[in-house]
Amino acid sequence: LKQAEIIAIGDELIIGQVVNTNASWIAWELNATGIGIVRMTCVGDDKKAITSALGEAFQRADFVLMTGGLGPTKDDITKAALCEYFKQPMRLDASILEHIKVLLAGRGYAMSEKQVHQAMVPYNAVALPNELGTAPCLWFEVGEQILVVMPGVPHEMKDIMTRTILPRLQKRSRGSVILHKTILTTGVGESHLSSMIEDWELALPPFIRLAYLPQPGIIRLRLTAQGTDEPVVQKALKEQVSLLQQRIPDLIFGYDEDSLEVILGKMLGGHHQTLATAESCTGGYIAHLITTVPGSSAYFSGSVVAYANEIKIRELGVDPKILLEHGAVSEQVVLQMASGVRDRFKTDLALAVSGIAGPDGGTPEKPVGTVWIAVTTPSGTQAKKFFFRDERRRTIHRTAIAAMNMLRLTLLGKEI
Amino acid sequence: LKQAEIIAIGDELIIGQVVNTNASWIAWELNATGIGIVRMTCVGDDKKAITSALGEAFQRADFVLMTGGLGPTKDDITKAALCEYFKQPMRLDASILEHIKVLLAGRGYAMSEKQVHQAMVPYNAVALPNELGTAPCLWFEVGEQILVVMPGVPHEMKDIMTRTILPRLQKRSRGSVILHKTILTTGVGESHLSSMIEDWELALPPFIRLAYLPQPGIIRLRLTAQGTDEPVVQKALKEQVSLLQQRIPDLIFGYDEDSLEVILGKMLGGHHQTLATAESCTGGYIAHLITTVPGSSAYFSGSVVAYANEIKIRELGVDPKILLEHGAVSEQVVLQMASGVRDRFKTDLALAVSGIAGPDGGTPEKPVGTVWIAVTTPSGTQAKKFFFRDERRRTIHRTAIAAMNMLRLTLLGKEI
Repeated sequence: LKQAEIIAIGDELIIGQVVNTNASWIAWELNATGIGIVRMTCVGDDKKAITSALGEAFQRADFVLMTGGLGPTKDDITKAALCEYFKQPMRLDASILEHIKVLLAGRGYAMSEKQVHQAMVPYNAVALPNELGTAPCLWFEVGEQILVVMPGVPHEMKDIMTRTILPRLQKRSRGSVILHKTILTTGVGESHLSSMIEDWELALPPFIRLAYLPQPGIIRLRLTAQGTDEPVVQKALKEQVSLLQQRIPDLIFGYDEDSLEVILGKMLGGHHQTLATAESCTGGYIAHLITTVPGSSAYFSGSVVAYANEIKIRELGVDPKILLEHGAVSEQVVLQMASGVRDRFKTDLALAVSGIAGPDGGTPEKPVGTVWIAVTTPSGTQAKKFFFRDERRRTIHRTAIAAMNMLRLTLLGKEI
Repeated sequence: LKQAEIIAIGDELIIGQVVNTNASWIAWELNATGIGIVRMTCVGDDKKAITSALGEAFQRADFVLMTGGLGPTKDDITKAALCEYFKQPMRLDASILEHIKVLLAGRGYAMSEKQVHQAMVPYNAVALPNELGTAPCLWFEVGEQILVVMPGVPHEMKDIMTRTILPRLQKRSRGSVILHKTILTTGVGESHLSSMIEDWELALPPFIRLAYLPQPGIIRLRLTAQGTDEPVVQKALKEQVSLLQQRIPDLIFGYDEDSLEVILGKMLGGHHQTLATAESCTGGYIAHLITTVPGSSAYFSGSVVAYANEIKIRELGVDPKILLEHGAVSEQVVLQMASGVRDRFKTDLALAVSGIAGPDGGTPEKPVGTVWIAVTTPSGTQAKKFFFRDERRRTIHRTAIAAMNMLRLTLLGKEI
């Protein structure tokens, strides 16, 4: 398996002003090509920092991919650092100069002196044209090792990578493949989940690794499989996913880039059912998540965000006596909210939530984090109490995840 | 000037599945404390990779800050790697064990064996409690050098850094100060803003630098001032902020960590005014943002998310003839939505939005991104048309920012 390192260069990165999204993107793409990543490094626009990071990377990796510091301004010194590292002079690359001229002419500009400098490259570099900008990509071969230097502008880098670099590197690496599958779960916490699937985890073949990626309300389980024979690796991965699915069928709601709102959208759309929500503590967040899905207007009618108690009474038909007797955060009220919004909005289904998101508003009987959720369908209504001891925004998020999951389980005819 | 290195650990980072936002956040905070960053490194959950990255960092930096791999699951091996690096055994930290017990009890859980393991720390580490999770922070002193190891969960890491680590490191570093002030603007785009403030920018003293940090709907202007005399630097920074404020008074809505929803909350709370929203294309997102603010129930009554046209008619009293004639995305309809929700919810103020978030639903007359926003107050109602040519989620976000800013300007008696 060929190994790569990624070095990102830029003062804006090293002071934390810009997040290094380039490195993640490159890593993901290399990985999909069957190239492993040993390390990612980030240094400022500093000659010594650049050359020492490069020297160290060459001690570990077959391929080194570098981004940034190729612009025409004074602070861009990557090319000078490369000349120093390789002890090579600069040369003017005629074909790159021509490419820049054509590119600028297409934008209606003439060539300036600064842009001529963009065609100067270290003597030992092969310069590859950048279709979207004036800084060429530089390709160095050092024995069996390869160094690729790309501009840091994300869309330019991605274009060069996809068009030119990935196919070239794939040719040089061969043999092993790395495959990933991410299983999305909700409903139990990390330590509970981990004890539920412990035997399965211990019985994983040595070439498949498991990682827990927790998010508020959701735990993603990522399987990484590595081997030389792609169909064999693919099959083994599939088998393990299917074993896991048998173990925790109700906890798994999707795979890879799925989300609960997209899954729900498919279920509702497929059954031609419509939904409305009545929200108190989530303040419209469930409606927001549902409507981030393009085409959600086909199944989502709308929501009543009943933040004030009068709104629960007037707009959702909650009985004031019940509200007074049991409080807004109660089974009785959340059930009335659910049937109230379903009747008013004339939908097939409704979700309602009422809770105490905090930081204030808790009592000894109903501490901050207490949440009631109700789901109503043509065949009946049920409510469940949850307790999320977390920061306000995260409690709101976890409530929305739990509510959407309750609807998902109800639609599947499973126990909530 | 003391120098730091940041090492982030995690397979999810090295394969590019998760972007390393922790490193940027830490770098920014260290920088503000007057500590420079030499390098950021990222390695996988691999003992050898961790120990070698650590050894190299100690050759360059005074402070090494490490994050990730402290969880209770099998793939978290940072503590084992540290024991190997320092050639130290593990020990059970009694006070951390107690802290975890209390933390779990507060969430209504008993302690499991896995969680006991969270209180095991390398023998030479000082363990500092994590207020938000079970993984403690580890502090090592190696001669004059310091290693800090923190959990990778962003909100836990940020809490520990702010509460404990930054003050401790600041004591160890001294000399020059770096001060930042961020000015938050909305209402015009980056190039427009930049030409409006060009002279001011060119006249900045050499020790104050300006950076544009654009976000959807908002442009943050960050000033960074550096010097040896803190009061002098502070004063110069204040002067420049005040000059900028005179230049673009209506565009500035806040500073540093402010948000429009917090600013609006203060304005509404201060005036004892209540608000409701009627939302179509934003699907409850404005209500959500407003209710992320603790205590928002004092001024926010609720919202009608009228995604379907029948809901606009039935729940907001929009005239079906007007809807048919002008379409849902029109000045007439958005005005009726605003007054409709204000009348029904009996609030002082109302905000209404109707638009086409895309990707589908556009027409030649009303392309995707067309949005109407209305604000209604006791003294009158006004509506304005916007056009946001962006991806669905970003269009929703930009619509919410524009709507909240329209309300802000209206409350200030300024032109929208």
